[in-house]
Amino acid sequence: MNFPDWVTYIQQRTETALQTILPAASLAPCRLHEAMRYAALGGGKRIRSLLVHATGSSFTHAKPEQLDRAACAVELIHAYSLIHDDLPCMDDDKLRRGKPTVHVEYDEATALLAGDALQTLAFQVLAETSVSATAAGQIEAILLLAQAAGSHGMAGGQAIDIASAGHEITREVLESMHVRKTGALVRAAVLIGARAGEGVLDNRRQRLDHYAKRIGLLYQVVDDILDAASDTATLGKTAGKDASNGKPTYVSLLGLTDARRFAEDLLSEAHEALAPLGERASRLHELADFISHRAF
Amino acid sequence: MNFPDWVTYIQQRTETALQTILPAASLAPCRLHEAMRYAALGGGKRIRSLLVHATGSSFTHAKPEQLDRAACAVELIHAYSLIHDDLPCMDDDKLRRGKPTVHVEYDEATALLAGDALQTLAFQVLAETSVSATAAGQIEAILLLAQAAGSHGMAGGQAIDIASAGHEITREVLESMHVRKTGALVRAAVLIGARAGEGVLDNRRQRLDHYAKRIGLLYQVVDDILDAASDTATLGKTAGKDASNGKPTYVSLLGLTDARRFAEDLLSEAHEALAPLGERASRLHELADFISHRAF
Repeated sequence: MNFPDWVTYIQQRTETALQTILPAASLAPCRLHEAMRYAALGGGKRIRSLLVHATGSSFTHAKPEQLDRAACAVELIHAYSLIHDDLPCMDDDKLRRGKPTVHVEYDEATALLAGDALQTLAFQVLAETSVSATAAGQIEAILLLAQAAGSHGMAGGQAIDIASAGHEITREVLESMHVRKTGALVRAAVLIGARAGEGVLDNRRQRLDHYAKRIGLLYQVVDDILDAASDTATLGKTAGKDASNGKPTYVSLLGLTDARRFAEDLLSEAHEALAPLGERASRLHELADFISHRAF
Repeated sequence: MNFPDWVTYIQQRTETALQTILPAASLAPCRLHEAMRYAALGGGKRIRSLLVHATGSSFTHAKPEQLDRAACAVELIHAYSLIHDDLPCMDDDKLRRGKPTVHVEYDEATALLAGDALQTLAFQVLAETSVSATAAGQIEAILLLAQAAGSHGMAGGQAIDIASAGHEITREVLESMHVRKTGALVRAAVLIGARAGEGVLDNRRQRLDHYAKRIGLLYQVVDDILDAASDTATLGKTAGKDASNGKPTYVSLLGLTDARRFAEDLLSEAHEALAPLGERASRLHELADFISHRAF
C-alpha cells in the first residue's frame, strides 16, 4: 500500500474502533456520551494512531486489532486533553478541527466531565483487552500511557504553558515545556506500539525511542510554525492564537526562518535514528515527513 | 487493635503513602505539584482507604504495602473528583474539608490540571507496582478502578447530578445517580481490596460485593442527611448547598425521617451481607456503622 492510502486506511480503522469503544449516545447519561463522541470522533490527523500502527505492525507481530485498541487509548488521552485545553480557564478556544469546541457546543460542565471520562476510558481500554502477548506487556503499556499523560508529561507541560503566557522564557524552558505538552504522548504512541504484541526488546527499542523523542518535539515546532504562518480556515482552529495570548513559541523565540531550520534538523535526526532499522522502518520514516510536511 | 485506633492507624498509613506517591512540590511544575498535594493530603476520613484495607487484610493475605498502594489509587481518584466537582462550572464550592477549594487557593486552570493529573497518577500507581499476587489480578484492579471512575460510574453520576439540578426526579433516577456518583468508587474500594494479594475468588466475593453496593448507597444517603441537618462548621464544607442549588437528594425526596429510615435499612442489609463471613468481616461491619454514625 502506498503511504497516502495507508494513512487513510489507518485513519478509517481508528475511527471505526473508536466508534465501538465509545459508549453509545443512546446510553445514559446521554449528553455526556454524546459529548465524548463529539470530541473523539470524526476528526484529526490521527498522528498518534498512525505511529502506534506503524511501529506495532513493523516490529512486534501484534494483531491489527491489538494495535487498534492501543491506538484508541492514545487517541482518547489526546481527545481529553484537547477538550480541557480549550476550556475558558485554559486557552479559551472556540474552534477545533473546524467545529465549535465541546464547551461551546455543549456546556462547560459537560466538557469537563467528557474530558475526565475520556481519560478514564483510555485506561479502561488498555485494561479490558490485552494489546500485548503477555500480561506484563499489557501493564507496561498502561504505565507508559500514564507516565506520558501525567504531571511529568502532558498535564505538566500544559501547566508550564499556562504559567509561561506573557513571560519571556529561555529556549531550554520552551523545549522542556514542549517535550512534555505534546512530545510525551507522541513518544508514548511509538513506545506503546513497540510494547504491543511480542514487543521490541532489543536495542531497536532505543532507536525507536530516539526517533520518538525527535518527532515528539518536531510535532510541536511544526505546530508553532503553522500557528504563526497559516490562517484560521486552513488550521481548523484559531490561527495566531499563541502570539495573541503572549505564549512563547519556537517562532516567537527563534523567528520563522530559524524555527523552520530547527524543524529540518529534527526531521533529519529522526530519519537518522531509523536508518539502522532498515526497510521495516519505512512507514515511520514517511510519518516523520508527514508530520513536518506543511511546515516548509 | 480497637476500631478507633485502627481507623487512626490506617488514616496515618494512607497519609504517609500518599506523601511518597505524590510528586514533591519542589519538582517542576511546582505549582501543579503543590496543588495536587494540597488536594490529596491532610484531610478526609479516608473511608475508601479503610475499605480497601479492611477487605484486603481480612480476606486476601495481601501485604500491607500492597493495600497502601491500592488504597492510594482509590483516594487519588476521589481527590481528583472533588477538585473538579468544586469548580465554578460544576458545584462552585469555596470550602472543602475546612479549607479553601483548590481553584480558590490556586486558580481554575491549576485546579483543572491538578485533577487531571491526580486521575492519571491513580492509574500509574496501580501499573507501577502490583497490588496483587498475579499480573492478571493487577490488571483486574486497574479495570475495576476505571469502570468505577468513568462515564458509567462516577463521572456519569456527576453528569446526571448536574443535569438534575432544579428538576424533579423519581426515586429510581436519584438512586441510579447516587449509585454512580458516590457508590461506584466506594464499591470499587471493596472490590479492589478483594482483588489484592491472592484475591477473593469464591462466593465470598459476591457477599463482599453486595455489602459494597449497600454501603456505597448508604454513604450518599448519609451525605444527603448531613448536608440538610448540619451547619457549615461541622461539615467543613458549605452546608445546605444541595437545597440552595435545587439539587434533588434523599432528604428533598423522602424527608429527613424517611431518609434516616432508608439509611437504617441499608445499614442492616450491609450487615446481613457480611453475616455469613463471620469474624473476618468484623472491620467491614464496624466500617458500615462508622459510615452511618453521624446520620442518626
